[in-house]
Amino acid sequence: MANLLYEGKAKRLFSTDQDGILRVAYKDDATALNGERKESFASKGRLNNEITSRIFSYLRDAGIKSHFVEQLSDTEQLVQAVEIIPLEVVVRNVIAGSLAKRLGVPEGTPTSRPIVEFYYKEDALDDPFINDAHVLYLEAATEDEIAILKQAALDVNVALCELFAKMNITLIDFKLEFGRDQDGKILLADEISPDTCRLWDRDTNAKLDKDVFRRNIGNLTAVYEEVLKRLKEVV
Amino acid sequence: MANLLYEGKAKRLFSTDQDGILRVAYKDDATALNGERKESFASKGRLNNEITSRIFSYLRDAGIKSHFVEQLSDTEQLVQAVEIIPLEVVVRNVIAGSLAKRLGVPEGTPTSRPIVEFYYKEDALDDPFINDAHVLYLEAATEDEIAILKQAALDVNVALCELFAKMNITLIDFKLEFGRDQDGKILLADEISPDTCRLWDRDTNAKLDKDVFRRNIGNLTAVYEEVLKRLKEVV
Repeated sequence: MANLLYEGKAKRLFSTDQDGILRVAYKDDATALNGERKESFASKGRLNNEITSRIFSYLRDAGIKSHFVEQLSDTEQLVQAVEIIPLEVVVRNVIAGSLAKRLGVPEGTPTSRPIVEFYYKEDALDDPFINDAHVLYLEAATEDEIAILKQAALDVNVALCELFAKMNITLIDFKLEFGRDQDGKILLADEISPDTCRLWDRDTNAKLDKDVFRRNIGNLTAVYEEVLKRLKEVV
Repeated sequence: MANLLYEGKAKRLFSTDQDGILRVAYKDDATALNGERKESFASKGRLNNEITSRIFSYLRDAGIKSHFVEQLSDTEQLVQAVEIIPLEVVVRNVIAGSLAKRLGVPEGTPTSRPIVEFYYKEDALDDPFINDAHVLYLEAATEDEIAILKQAALDVNVALCELFAKMNITLIDFKLEFGRDQDGKILLADEISPDTCRLWDRDTNAKLDKDVFRRNIGNLTAVYEEVLKRLKEVV
């Protein structure tokens, strides 16, 4: 008996017969503006599931543990149950999106070293940008956990930059989520896909990510297919 | 020959005959919404000069060095020339203002420990809230300086909380600015006044600060006079 435990904007989470193991089903929905704008794209669920599964497998081989267990079907994967930490951990290699506006820096300006940011996962507040002191105030993570999250995010960044470089893609920025397992150990969770990364073609700077939907500048499915195609060539 | 070196929203800065010493002249202007709204209040310059001079003297006695040299007249003081660090360092003991909105927490909620925040001093960007990684990216301060700024802000907070408690006032939050002297040593600078602090009467929670102007809920001059009166009773 599989119960729906949680439905998010892009995924559904079900229980399984195995203790501590959940099934994630990726949906075809794309949302922007914190869910205000919503469209469905055939194959999007499959593409993000395939991409995320391959990336989490690659990260596992690179020594980075995540909640990922295995891909189950086109649109589904098995994951370890974790208590999600209510933070979006963003890593930026090149200034784009909200940070370009915040700092008044042109999109496409590289950073000399990666910038890590925390956003408080709270739809009602539009996932506000916060600092370490706010994380502690909100009791979203402890001081030790903040250090672990930042280091893990930077480790993931090193592995992903290497992977995407092989795909002739620049990893501009990305969002991670983490969870605590039963022992309180922090594990990478959620997904890593063109929904959660900014990916620019190295030769043309063409956007290969959800910005084609957010900014109405192309065919989301075709772009995600291209990312999966290049990914399959390298892992 | 005194040259006008800089004119801000609330103060003018002049050179003096003494090398490395500047004269600050406080203006009667109050601004809100990053200068969009502006009004003049008779005595405001005098009140903020008197309040800041007394507070910087008190902090000096408490072992906290600042750029303050001495009060020169009703509306003027002498300060050490520093290179201002382009950060507003905010300390919060009670949630109010922008942070109440950001975190969805009711105004007046105490924090279990003080929250320190950085804002990038850049009028064109509306002084955006930033984190430590942004400070480094902007080269506004080094990693060592960030640690010094945070500790200095917390030290000032301890001294100010004690002072305002004697005045029957709760120090809700405040903004500090710092500068580097000729040797690169970091010194507290700018002002500490009801323009830069949120001050609530301990018995009535009445606002004794610039929020009476920002929110149109009282007579700014009367409120600042009250703060100076209570300050004179204790230092």
